[in-house]
Amino acid sequence: MDFSLSLRQAWSRADSMLCVGLDPDPERIPASIAGDPDALFIFCRDIVDATAAQVCAFKPQIAYFSAARAERALERVIEHIHRHHPGIPVILDAKRGDIGSTAERYAIEAFERYGADAVTINPYMGFDSIEPWLAWKGRGVILLCRTSNPGGSDLQALNVGGEALYERVARLTAGPWNTNGQLGLVLGATFPAELARVRAIAGDLPMLVPGIGAQGGDVPATVSAGLASDGWGMIINSSRAILYASQGTDFAEAAAAVAQRTCEEIRAARTAALSARAL
Amino acid sequence: MDFSLSLRQAWSRADSMLCVGLDPDPERIPASIAGDPDALFIFCRDIVDATAAQVCAFKPQIAYFSAARAERALERVIEHIHRHHPGIPVILDAKRGDIGSTAERYAIEAFERYGADAVTINPYMGFDSIEPWLAWKGRGVILLCRTSNPGGSDLQALNVGGEALYERVARLTAGPWNTNGQLGLVLGATFPAELARVRAIAGDLPMLVPGIGAQGGDVPATVSAGLASDGWGMIINSSRAILYASQGTDFAEAAAAVAQRTCEEIRAARTAALSARAL
Repeated sequence: MDFSLSLRQAWSRADSMLCVGLDPDPERIPASIAGDPDALFIFCRDIVDATAAQVCAFKPQIAYFSAARAERALERVIEHIHRHHPGIPVILDAKRGDIGSTAERYAIEAFERYGADAVTINPYMGFDSIEPWLAWKGRGVILLCRTSNPGGSDLQALNVGGEALYERVARLTAGPWNTNGQLGLVLGATFPAELARVRAIAGDLPMLVPGIGAQGGDVPATVSAGLASDGWGMIINSSRAILYASQGTDFAEAAAAVAQRTCEEIRAARTAALSARAL
Repeated sequence: MDFSLSLRQAWSRADSMLCVGLDPDPERIPASIAGDPDALFIFCRDIVDATAAQVCAFKPQIAYFSAARAERALERVIEHIHRHHPGIPVILDAKRGDIGSTAERYAIEAFERYGADAVTINPYMGFDSIEPWLAWKGRGVILLCRTSNPGGSDLQALNVGGEALYERVARLTAGPWNTNGQLGLVLGATFPAELARVRAIAGDLPMLVPGIGAQGGDVPATVSAGLASDGWGMIINSSRAILYASQGTDFAEAAAAVAQRTCEEIRAARTAALSARAL
């Protein structure tokens, strides 16, 4: 299992940089399944099956499962993706961050227990909080860099010796921290100019980009800012706009339609960005 | 339930600033109970009962339970503390960090599901990642500031406009972010000079201080650096040195003995620091 290879194959096979985020909010799950004790699994499974052809990755968000005491549902969702949609990498969005033997435990949680191909982590504790994850060769480790929320600026935009803190994180992640080529970065689609600066710093590192859809990030600006030199490089996440496209019994079809539209929008933006680059 | 009040009462009732960290490492649990399917719960329960008289708080570390698919054991450990040792606050060490509805889910996980009195969180995503936790009035929210690991310096020690990033975090945490008086800070005992600078910035904010015991932080230097103006203010954590004092059948008695010795060492350091201050 090699995340970086799976991802490259998924980009070109699906001709897609769309990632569907699996954030099963109990208050928004369709009424037709909300009463089922297995509702979280059923909802995610149906969304996965309906959108798999349009995506380069799935990104379950662990908090929605933990709050509902539904760890078993999360295990089953990831098993389902691996079994029925082999080759589509699963990024566990957990934003963990700790050191030493604790970090080792978190890595066991993400990679062994849940079977994730990649995980999101928080860089605030520095390299020795990242190192234990790198012992899992071939798994992806995606560090928060410039997050999509307005408050992200509170610390990430601070000037540290002539560059912003998020630029320093990008420089460390693309350089000395990336000992085995496993690292990636989280960059919000809500800040395309900063995304472009990070692309210039970080070479072709994979970027997980939340913030389109419900959060309002602009797709053409995002794609133009973040495309890597090989013409790919981005995992553009949409969660709510796809998951809750309909809360009726047609939720899966509605999700598939929005996923397809979003995938095509990203594809068109990519074509335009590649043409502009060729000029 | 008010964390800040419970903590003040626990400090003076036990005459202790010691916190016992519950990090049940499957590889170090005594052989006498390691084979039991309920080993994590039994181990933590016995440690809790043996050390409760010496502590101002307990701090379970969630990764050890998640990696072992033992969420139910963690629920039961915290229930046990609340039922059998009422008034001792429980700090769930989870270092979560996310925004919006995801942060709300993490708060439900920590406060509703697990019944924690306080939680550790990561400040990298800024104030809007902290705000959802503050909706839980009376619960404690303890932000990473200057962590005990060497790599903590990678980002936390960077100069941001004349102060280190961790000092900025302390200033924000003690000031504009602390809208309901719920916030505290994590400061490593391995950096007493920096702990003292943060105490000067952060007033009497409670400080969770890991890094004594196995990590080598010096107790008198730590206490002298971090004591608040009311003569308390610190939650000084030791995990491994107490949990694994013996791996024989006497593990609980051995843990109690180390906890008592550590508590007395902290108490002596506090008395010395108060005397020095009175001069």
